[in-house]
Amino acid sequence: MSQPATSNYSLVSELPTPALVVDSARLDHNLAALAAARPGRTARPHVKAHKCTALARRQLAVGHDAFTCATPREMIGMARAGLGADLLLANEVIDPFRLEALAALDARVTIAVDSPATIAAAAAAGLRECLVDVNVGLPRAGCSPADAGRLADDARNAGLSVRGVMGYEGHTVGIVDRVERTEKTATAMAILAQAHSEVGGEIVSAGATGTFDINSVATEIQAGSYALMDSAYDDLGLPFVTALEIIATVISVSPSEGYAVADAGLKALGMDHGNPRLNGYQVWFCSDEHITFGPDEASLPAVGDRVAITPAHVDPTVAYHETLFVTEGERVVEAWAVDLRGW
Amino acid sequence: MSQPATSNYSLVSELPTPALVVDSARLDHNLAALAAARPGRTARPHVKAHKCTALARRQLAVGHDAFTCATPREMIGMARAGLGADLLLANEVIDPFRLEALAALDARVTIAVDSPATIAAAAAAGLRECLVDVNVGLPRAGCSPADAGRLADDARNAGLSVRGVMGYEGHTVGIVDRVERTEKTATAMAILAQAHSEVGGEIVSAGATGTFDINSVATEIQAGSYALMDSAYDDLGLPFVTALEIIATVISVSPSEGYAVADAGLKALGMDHGNPRLNGYQVWFCSDEHITFGPDEASLPAVGDRVAITPAHVDPTVAYHETLFVTEGERVVEAWAVDLRGW
Repeated sequence: MSQPATSNYSLVSELPTPALVVDSARLDHNLAALAAARPGRTARPHVKAHKCTALARRQLAVGHDAFTCATPREMIGMARAGLGADLLLANEVIDPFRLEALAALDARVTIAVDSPATIAAAAAAGLRECLVDVNVGLPRAGCSPADAGRLADDARNAGLSVRGVMGYEGHTVGIVDRVERTEKTATAMAILAQAHSEVGGEIVSAGATGTFDINSVATEIQAGSYALMDSAYDDLGLPFVTALEIIATVISVSPSEGYAVADAGLKALGMDHGNPRLNGYQVWFCSDEHITFGPDEASLPAVGDRVAITPAHVDPTVAYHETLFVTEGERVVEAWAVDLRGW
Repeated sequence: MSQPATSNYSLVSELPTPALVVDSARLDHNLAALAAARPGRTARPHVKAHKCTALARRQLAVGHDAFTCATPREMIGMARAGLGADLLLANEVIDPFRLEALAALDARVTIAVDSPATIAAAAAAGLRECLVDVNVGLPRAGCSPADAGRLADDARNAGLSVRGVMGYEGHTVGIVDRVERTEKTATAMAILAQAHSEVGGEIVSAGATGTFDINSVATEIQAGSYALMDSAYDDLGLPFVTALEIIATVISVSPSEGYAVADAGLKALGMDHGNPRLNGYQVWFCSDEHITFGPDEASLPAVGDRVAITPAHVDPTVAYHETLFVTEGERVVEAWAVDLRGW
């Protein structure tokens, strides 16, 4: 079982850049806030947002021992780290070798199914428990709601235990207006509740950071981003704070043209939500290994200065990095491997 | 010295997905096309696009023994792989530990400098050769053209040998219209030629895949994307063909709503150039581990079918992956480690 490692670096100012840093106190604030609102198994933290067993261990320490995974490798890594009390793969997998690897884990493994093919594959691999994944309005995985009851019967006939349903309201979780977010979440969850009545089982798994306190149907919330947060979720007025930054070093400055360049770019940042945030500056653009920015409230930095960037989307950002450096003020107190990367 | 490994998989259909596959014949076509137009040291292939020493070895095999790198780790990896005949770090670095690591390599190492601070750092670390990096119109690294001659004097006074100049016309390389691309490249290169006259040295390093045959000032072209290509560069009508695809497995299909979902998403694709291309289909959107797409010329696939995705931007796509699988038709003939990732 891997343990959080001591960092080779004592101070943030010593870290080679770009470096992902996690503010320990802000992380703990977020973990406590969710655990208070959704204690124990009423939350099933999603590890895809951080891909880090050391961080998952902190989530366990505040009471959550059930986790959500997006990939087989995430699930295998969690099980090997001793975090396998109740793991849900909230995703469909058809690959027999990977499904057999999941079935062989020393862990409680539940998998999402949404079609006869995924049910047959799970059963053939020796998996024993599933949730029926229901489309609640996001055009992604998930069966048509009208098919949920029939698929549950199919799964039971194939020898699988059906623990309930899941349905991801991904089309509502990022809506900035809370009233609109609440209304649209309720609409999506009415679909899931109806499907649940036809499927049975004790679990209704849904939700996300953006709906953790407004989704009244889910028995468990699959929140992931809440732990580290990002600039997109930070616009929603949630009780979670940004706990992750990318430290970059200024490597070039043009006083005459009014911009500076630091060493974190497209290969250090998930870009699907647009440019990251750099407090005091306007981000002009990112290229492979650079971010170009101009002064806003802050003045231009000097070559060698460091800046702290808040990514726009945490999940694809962390997936580029090997290490999360945990900080207390300027001190680096731990180095956590991003050990759940890949598929 | 690492050698290209035999793949554990014999057929593309056996690869766990998402999988990056490189068509060997199409790669060789691209390598031959650049080597014909820009033989030997008139091209300095940029390894940032593929981050793979095995692929660099194929570039060496067609005559290029000088390479461009974007990060210290790329340069260290190239040197350790025995590919260090003439390595340019086309980027500014101020970190003394990394600069000392570069100076200690068993390789010819040249570094870009664009300020007194970067010159001082390079000289203090024991580096011996540099290029003066000149801003030719892209607001990124590179000194003001008027400062180039003075910085060259500074570098020589600091004990560095100045091999010439570099200037990246990144604002012109993606212009689809060839006439406009040619004109704007000429404007940028006039700036670089003037700076070169004040700096001296034998090298004028510039260019990219989009300007390899229209940049008449550069003595060497830093083309990278040409080897694997992507959908953005594919729109420019260049003599290079897309050689890289991401193989994904269809894991969910909604016939009633007319879409399918495959298992390659934001963590398998650089997204700064927008959605990837999926021939025969319209890409609706990508999420962390999924791509949702609808039929266009092709009809909806079935669960378990495989699709081949062409990324929109090759560099940040490859940086997410561990392996490039090399294919000849349906056969997987080699597995190349993406061994130059990180910083």
